[in-house]
Amino acid sequence: MPEVKKPNPARRNERSRHAILDAARELIREVGYAKVSIEAIAARAGVGKQTIYRWWPSKGAVVFDSFLALSGDPEEGEGMALPDTGDIEADLKLVMRATVAEFADPHFEAPIRALNLEIISDSDLAAQYREKLARPVEDVKKARLRAAQQAGQLAADADLDLVLEVLYAPLYQRWLHRSGPLTAEYADALVDVTLKAFRP
Amino acid sequence: MPEVKKPNPARRNERSRHAILDAARELIREVGYAKVSIEAIAARAGVGKQTIYRWWPSKGAVVFDSFLALSGDPEEGEGMALPDTGDIEADLKLVMRATVAEFADPHFEAPIRALNLEIISDSDLAAQYREKLARPVEDVKKARLRAAQQAGQLAADADLDLVLEVLYAPLYQRWLHRSGPLTAEYADALVDVTLKAFRP
Repeated sequence: MPEVKKPNPARRNERSRHAILDAARELIREVGYAKVSIEAIAARAGVGKQTIYRWWPSKGAVVFDSFLALSGDPEEGEGMALPDTGDIEADLKLVMRATVAEFADPHFEAPIRALNLEIISDSDLAAQYREKLARPVEDVKKARLRAAQQAGQLAADADLDLVLEVLYAPLYQRWLHRSGPLTAEYADALVDVTLKAFRP
Repeated sequence: MPEVKKPNPARRNERSRHAILDAARELIREVGYAKVSIEAIAARAGVGKQTIYRWWPSKGAVVFDSFLALSGDPEEGEGMALPDTGDIEADLKLVMRATVAEFADPHFEAPIRALNLEIISDSDLAAQYREKLARPVEDVKKARLRAAQQAGQLAADADLDLVLEVLYAPLYQRWLHRSGPLTAEYADALVDVTLKAFRP
């Protein structure tokens, strides 16, 4: 039998989906979240507006998924782990310096701020964000903190949600409000303060 | 000479200004920031749209001033002070419990969230916010922390900006992301952790 070329709708859908998510991120970076429209995303991605509305109910939902796509396949998340050299101070400083550098990077500034505005204003999206993005990452961090508890480097009864808040929330607030410098020294200070606060 | 009733433009302006600011706050509470328009504020306040644009360049600016008005005359701020019983732990717990209760109050939820979205998305407004609202309040808090340093209750070399971030940023992030309960116990835990972190 001669080979017949059939269209492959699944593959075409996947290609459109990627094009839409890439377009959403690019446009946010270029013109800012407020000025991005579903129309502009559709035009950039080379698809019809209806294609976007078939998969997403709102601009916020597309933006959210475009960041989810950026953070990789959630299945891969199972392989995530924080460095564990046995020295919680050194390991956390490595992680926090990288996190501070990321927040300070102008390339990430616009899209991360756009995502945060969506999460803050839309409680449904906030719940999705917690479930799909924040919680898996927090679980990874808590696993490292638990190892530090077992090694006697953190109080055994420390509330790990509170540990993560004390470590990350000051950086988050400083970045959101542009209220102070985001430096390696600041990253180190946050680790020092957190370890002192939750010392055994 | 007979008394002549003259119109008093200054007083009329002041009345319009108050009506506009009240209308802005009321509408945000009722329909949410995104759905409030300059037109709706003007209609509610009984003034023309042009009256608003004469005094404010944008919706964000009106909203900002409506909150500034709520926090009272800045001149009065000079009289502000945190409680000082000599016991920094008790004083901070009193203040933090009140702050947590305010964030947890649904009456304040919508307008405070609207203000925060403005500040996060608009760096000029963020600078104004820091200058006019945040910094004066922070100065008052730092005065109390300095007294605690002198009393040997906080490390003499503690960075007071960092102390305030560790104390308030976790609460702020938890409220913004709706990521945990806002309770008196949480307020106390933040004070305990902060005092341990900055112990002499």
